[in-house]
Amino acid sequence: MSVNKPLLIWCNAFRSKASEMLLVRGLEEYEVLFDGTGPTGIPSNVNVIFGHPEPERLLQLDQIEWVHIDSAGYTPYDTPRVKDFLLKRGIPLTNSSAVYSEPCAQHLLAAMLVLARQMIPAVKTPGEWSQQELRRKCHLLRDQTVLILGYGNIGKRLVELLQPFGLRILAARRTVSQPMPGVELIPLSALKTHLGEVDHLVNILPENESTRRIVDRDFLRRLKTGAVFYNIGRGATVDQSGLIEVLEIGHLRACFLDVTDPEPLPANHRLWTAPNCYITPHTAGGHETEFIRLADHFLQNLSHWVRGENLIDRVF
Amino acid sequence: MSVNKPLLIWCNAFRSKASEMLLVRGLEEYEVLFDGTGPTGIPSNVNVIFGHPEPERLLQLDQIEWVHIDSAGYTPYDTPRVKDFLLKRGIPLTNSSAVYSEPCAQHLLAAMLVLARQMIPAVKTPGEWSQQELRRKCHLLRDQTVLILGYGNIGKRLVELLQPFGLRILAARRTVSQPMPGVELIPLSALKTHLGEVDHLVNILPENESTRRIVDRDFLRRLKTGAVFYNIGRGATVDQSGLIEVLEIGHLRACFLDVTDPEPLPANHRLWTAPNCYITPHTAGGHETEFIRLADHFLQNLSHWVRGENLIDRVF
Repeated sequence: MSVNKPLLIWCNAFRSKASEMLLVRGLEEYEVLFDGTGPTGIPSNVNVIFGHPEPERLLQLDQIEWVHIDSAGYTPYDTPRVKDFLLKRGIPLTNSSAVYSEPCAQHLLAAMLVLARQMIPAVKTPGEWSQQELRRKCHLLRDQTVLILGYGNIGKRLVELLQPFGLRILAARRTVSQPMPGVELIPLSALKTHLGEVDHLVNILPENESTRRIVDRDFLRRLKTGAVFYNIGRGATVDQSGLIEVLEIGHLRACFLDVTDPEPLPANHRLWTAPNCYITPHTAGGHETEFIRLADHFLQNLSHWVRGENLIDRVF
Repeated sequence: MSVNKPLLIWCNAFRSKASEMLLVRGLEEYEVLFDGTGPTGIPSNVNVIFGHPEPERLLQLDQIEWVHIDSAGYTPYDTPRVKDFLLKRGIPLTNSSAVYSEPCAQHLLAAMLVLARQMIPAVKTPGEWSQQELRRKCHLLRDQTVLILGYGNIGKRLVELLQPFGLRILAARRTVSQPMPGVELIPLSALKTHLGEVDHLVNILPENESTRRIVDRDFLRRLKTGAVFYNIGRGATVDQSGLIEVLEIGHLRACFLDVTDPEPLPANHRLWTAPNCYITPHTAGGHETEFIRLADHFLQNLSHWVRGENLIDRVF
């Protein structure tokens, strides 16, 4: 970082009044520009970005030193051009994974439990007491195999939350790093041999060229009959027509989607009426303290950055 | 037990064809009477009961040696007359707590998460994408205080399932036994001083003279504003009019009831339309292997009993 002139920080991060005040106070010693009108109006002498800059504009910034994204997903920057630009200049890209891993993991466990316990059919019709029918359909999360696709921070937190259930957990990611207790790590390339063992397929994959439509009809058909599919990664990683087919033939017991392609999902889309398909409107990361935690996380990372320390949630 | 004549076992336990076959095979060396027609037709020379005998009939059985109840709740037997009868003769009463603690604890965690993650409003109207509104209402289970009323096997399992969330957990029961890591045990008599700290009130109380209507309007008003109330114990432990009042004034954020008074809850009951009141029709204990596990549990306890070993899930 440059020490002779104050840093210029540009911020279009999602925020509330309270979180903006937090940022204003925390960034007093820097020059800060807030831009609520769009990601392209970034001044050319910017040093640090907190938010979601337009990727093409990013490539034009020759004084940029660090980019901190205000989401866990970073698809727009996961392209050869952006990656190349950042890596060549040694510009770190960090995301807000630490903010979103907790709500997303809790949302996933909620989805697993709400389907196992038949809660949506139970509360659907107030006044109806279908006790025996529902009891027979209720399941336990127990003696089953979970496969996590895209094993990053959210997946790791989910594994912690699932620990007391005593399930078998498989996890797959592009690059298999060090093992973790209670999880069998497998490379994405070896996936297909394991699909027949899977009762719960948890998709947390980011969207990029290698993941687009990776979960297709054939992939889902290979899962154990009666398996459940959950997606809180990105909608485009799934072949939605294939998913609807597999739900219609009853091969899957249910699916739970927090992400779709496109978003918002049009009101007349077939997913809304596919059998046993439950959808939350991309709310997995939401929580009442979201904007405060986003601002806190950036400020904490900034204090690391100005001291030359390792950054949290570095993507590349 | 008597060794010269085969035991006479009477069974009116809830069962499926598969679980009845399991019982028939497991009880080959005994005389067994199945009675699906009602709990009163119990022969007077019965030695062991597996099911839910009519309490008045129980008091007439002078050869009874052991009673194993096919539920976790045992309200009909938790009366001075029945208790006195059993205790004086040294007749153990066991229940099926080990069968139901897992599904009930999972149902409770499901309820806590489904409310925190706003899943019911989200899936209520297919076609509606209320992303921003729902995200703002979503909560995390974190930095909060949970109070468990009625801390038996279900509560203990819930504590295990909640361990990774890092919540503060208080637990109250009639008789406070040994402490458990991660739980602050408090006697029921000291409850009221703690209610102002409680974000999640989890009621697993059995119904008896000391618990009837214990959760009343005053009790609920003392909870922290925005607290959530869950009941999977017995409906009669709650003053339901008081609960509706406290929901209507918005003091509670929500409530989740798996038990009501009466059951089934009449279709025109005000609880069905009380604000933020979610009801599952006494399904917390249900699971696909329920009847098999009930039979297994009884057979396992029987093998203890014939060898004079300690019984599992002894109530008194």
